[in-house]
Amino acid sequence: MASYVIGIDYGTLSGRSVLVDTADGTVIATSAFDYPHGVLDRTLPDGTPLPADYALQHPQDYLDVVYRTIPRVLETSGVSRDDVVGIGLDATACTALPLDQQGQPLCFRFPSEPQSYIKMWKHHGAQALANRLTRAAESVCPELLTSMGGSISAESFFPKLWEIWEQAPRLYEEMYEYMEVADWIILHMTGSAHRNGCAAGYKAQFIPGKGYPRPELFEKAGFCPKGRVTDKMPSPVVPVGETAGYLKEDVAEKLGLRAGIPVAAGLVDAHVCVPAAGIAQEGHMLMIIGTSACHMLMGKEAKEVPGICGFVDGGIMPGYAGFEAGQSSVGDLYAWFVSNCVPASYFDAAKAQNMSIHSYLSLLASRKRPGETGLLALDWLNGNRSILCNYDLSALILGMTMQTRCEDIYRALVESTAFGCRAIVDNFNTHGVRVDRFTASGGISLKNPFVMQIYSDVLNMPVEVIRAEVGPALGSAIFAAVAAGCYKNIQAAAQAMKSETVAIYTPRAENARIYESLYHEYMVLYEYFGRAEQIMQRLRSGYNR
Amino acid sequence: MASYVIGIDYGTLSGRSVLVDTADGTVIATSAFDYPHGVLDRTLPDGTPLPADYALQHPQDYLDVVYRTIPRVLETSGVSRDDVVGIGLDATACTALPLDQQGQPLCFRFPSEPQSYIKMWKHHGAQALANRLTRAAESVCPELLTSMGGSISAESFFPKLWEIWEQAPRLYEEMYEYMEVADWIILHMTGSAHRNGCAAGYKAQFIPGKGYPRPELFEKAGFCPKGRVTDKMPSPVVPVGETAGYLKEDVAEKLGLRAGIPVAAGLVDAHVCVPAAGIAQEGHMLMIIGTSACHMLMGKEAKEVPGICGFVDGGIMPGYAGFEAGQSSVGDLYAWFVSNCVPASYFDAAKAQNMSIHSYLSLLASRKRPGETGLLALDWLNGNRSILCNYDLSALILGMTMQTRCEDIYRALVESTAFGCRAIVDNFNTHGVRVDRFTASGGISLKNPFVMQIYSDVLNMPVEVIRAEVGPALGSAIFAAVAAGCYKNIQAAAQAMKSETVAIYTPRAENARIYESLYHEYMVLYEYFGRAEQIMQRLRSGYNR
Repeated sequence: MASYVIGIDYGTLSGRSVLVDTADGTVIATSAFDYPHGVLDRTLPDGTPLPADYALQHPQDYLDVVYRTIPRVLETSGVSRDDVVGIGLDATACTALPLDQQGQPLCFRFPSEPQSYIKMWKHHGAQALANRLTRAAESVCPELLTSMGGSISAESFFPKLWEIWEQAPRLYEEMYEYMEVADWIILHMTGSAHRNGCAAGYKAQFIPGKGYPRPELFEKAGFCPKGRVTDKMPSPVVPVGETAGYLKEDVAEKLGLRAGIPVAAGLVDAHVCVPAAGIAQEGHMLMIIGTSACHMLMGKEAKEVPGICGFVDGGIMPGYAGFEAGQSSVGDLYAWFVSNCVPASYFDAAKAQNMSIHSYLSLLASRKRPGETGLLALDWLNGNRSILCNYDLSALILGMTMQTRCEDIYRALVESTAFGCRAIVDNFNTHGVRVDRFTASGGISLKNPFVMQIYSDVLNMPVEVIRAEVGPALGSAIFAAVAAGCYKNIQAAAQAMKSETVAIYTPRAENARIYESLYHEYMVLYEYFGRAEQIMQRLRSGYNR
Repeated sequence: MASYVIGIDYGTLSGRSVLVDTADGTVIATSAFDYPHGVLDRTLPDGTPLPADYALQHPQDYLDVVYRTIPRVLETSGVSRDDVVGIGLDATACTALPLDQQGQPLCFRFPSEPQSYIKMWKHHGAQALANRLTRAAESVCPELLTSMGGSISAESFFPKLWEIWEQAPRLYEEMYEYMEVADWIILHMTGSAHRNGCAAGYKAQFIPGKGYPRPELFEKAGFCPKGRVTDKMPSPVVPVGETAGYLKEDVAEKLGLRAGIPVAAGLVDAHVCVPAAGIAQEGHMLMIIGTSACHMLMGKEAKEVPGICGFVDGGIMPGYAGFEAGQSSVGDLYAWFVSNCVPASYFDAAKAQNMSIHSYLSLLASRKRPGETGLLALDWLNGNRSILCNYDLSALILGMTMQTRCEDIYRALVESTAFGCRAIVDNFNTHGVRVDRFTASGGISLKNPFVMQIYSDVLNMPVEVIRAEVGPALGSAIFAAVAAGCYKNIQAAAQAMKSETVAIYTPRAENARIYESLYHEYMVLYEYFGRAEQIMQRLRSGYNR
């Protein structure tokens, strides 16, 4: 008898549910829901203005995803509630929010307090605190930094938590737990409070058997609340691949599901994609390319790789060293450009040809050869995650002349993100974690062949693209199938349920040759602005203060 | 009895005539005419495609200016033809064209040959040849380079002439004379073939009593036509302030003027502005700010100033060392940005407020404080004239984040041009030619108070703006008045006929303080990309070839 699982995936701007056949991973139905509040980066819903570098979200949007999309996939598919045997869930991370003891988000009670909302992964308000934690770690626990690329990212868990204590001490007292949004949604659905080992490992430096970083780190940095920092993280950590709880009666009724079906422990959205891509060996990189990009790679053994953002042994799949790297701005960079720098004539021409503005710009840009525009860019609009771990960096465009047109800049920005990816791949290879196969997934990989061909040419490797139209949700469904007992382990489930490969881009020799040179030019700028010269940091710290 | 003179000024995109009262310089009438062919930078009129870096014009447009605007100012003013006593004329330089022995432009006979057209001042097609001339000069006549800022500019006379020999040898043979467009128009009006000493000095390195550069320079560089290079420059050089000829009967009749009135020797448009601004002493810089900017400065004595573009003793006014510096892109940079990088919403909002797009962007940008955008730019869209003399450089914008908006970039570009001006002023002061007063003229100085206030803040000096709505044409009229004998010399005429000061911008202390720091950041990029690192040159030379 056929059985089905539901995978829920929380992205940056929307969430979705998929209903999947456990036998072969066929997606039977899918439903997406855009967060009504979107990203809160200028004001709170009540008009309270936000500082620069803030990126918040509203928890109601995350609840709405559950209640809008699950009934919808059931209805669309026609699948009987009795045949749905499990749920899995993933979200961006660290994307966390403060809760009271009843598991209620504190922003419901303190709607004018920015610190009470969900802080998105790309919230950079705590950069200064992250820097202080890094400095403290250098003397207290340098080994910790090794697993995090040399610094504690402002995007990780503890700087975001510390920022509450700094900015809203009363709220900090009021808070019972600071939780990843994925764990909170599972708490809401099951009543079981757990913290998933994937996010805890990569984002809060949790090591099984050892726990969170030592209290001395926080004391040294000056993060000294009453009690211990980890008092605000009371729930136990559940390892990757385990069951976190069972669907509550009241929730099941509202959703139209059977009560008591297992809900798998949550995962970070990038990590859950690895089994969905059918990857179960070392050396095969998965890049998820969307607003930002994550690069997941498994190695045979734990190795020190400078500049990666996260290393957790067994953090992606049991038996492998799990590495995570990332680029902070990819689709964000293209979108920023399109929103802020593209004249009306391009939108008009795109409309006349019934094309999206990105497709139209890509079409124009694809008519140029590598090197022809004379432009070179640094893709650091949101800073540089890997391999510089520096969010005070910024974007750069160089080489403009009177002849430079809008599509030339678009091409240079696409090339810059591909060069940024190449820098990550080269860094792994240099440090003994080899990358010999490359798969891409995520919206851009399916929508924009121009971009993917440039990646292949710049990497000088074939780039395989998997269908993954449902994003990481298939990966969550695979974990749900394991939780439901359909497979004995995640490897077996991944093999059976993996996504289909839909395209393979192969490098064009002539382009690869030119890009080899241009990549070295990119690295000239990378080294100068990323390491040798601090001008970007000085400009961002503000001369007008 | 009142007497009047006509000044004609040829700009980059249009020409104009003014009819001026010789008593006090009052502009009685003015008429402008846009060149119908504009700038030929993509194709010739017959569709022949042009290489990158070409900027050509059509000589018919220059003739049309004479025949359209002079009758118009006579008609508008109601002044009797008998009261018009002289004509003066200026043009951009080096802006030159090949003529046959009858003084006819060769492009009238060879309309598909790019080399037969007027090469504009900003034509950069001969960069490689200019580099070869520079290298030859280093060994043959290093003293020549000293007066030209260390290199022979692609914008100067001989590279443009050489390019004809290289690219169109048959045309080179056919050519009788290669002439500045100002001299050609005077030849057309008077029948007298002269070469004006201002352009000959600044653009073709002519020194009175010594002549043009020695033949060995050209031989060494490889510019070896039959005969001598200067065979294509047979007409004599007439010094600044002299009369070049007298209006011919047939031309006078067509224009409605008296035949036989004197026509003053032509001048370069920037230089003719100095007396029009009433400047007759050392240390008082005049900046003419338009598509590009020229910086004219007189010193008490000849001094070596590295990186200026031209030094001619007596080249601006008798008795003073005349220095010329320049920025290749100012208004061009703003215009490029507005044409290529500004979304429709800004144009819509500007229209709704009945503002020009530049005024609207300036309004938005003026709400930011110095340093607030976190952006920094290099203003090298057309290369860097002073003080790097390098046209293979290009523009750069740095510091973009997700928060960066269009008006922020606009402000950064304006600031970059002001920093570029500051670099020129500092360079003069450093080398003993002091700058203690600063006057601005040209379209932008009158139209955009936002831009001029930033210049004052960045220079930390008052910036005086003169009316000069008629541009350099008043200066040409002043020279016409001297040619007509109304004044005994140019100093006396300048004192009587000078432009009115319409605004004085004074530096705001707080802004000046911040810009002092930001200027040093600008110079970090300036030194790195202008001197230390050749990445811009490598990118422009083309990786795709």
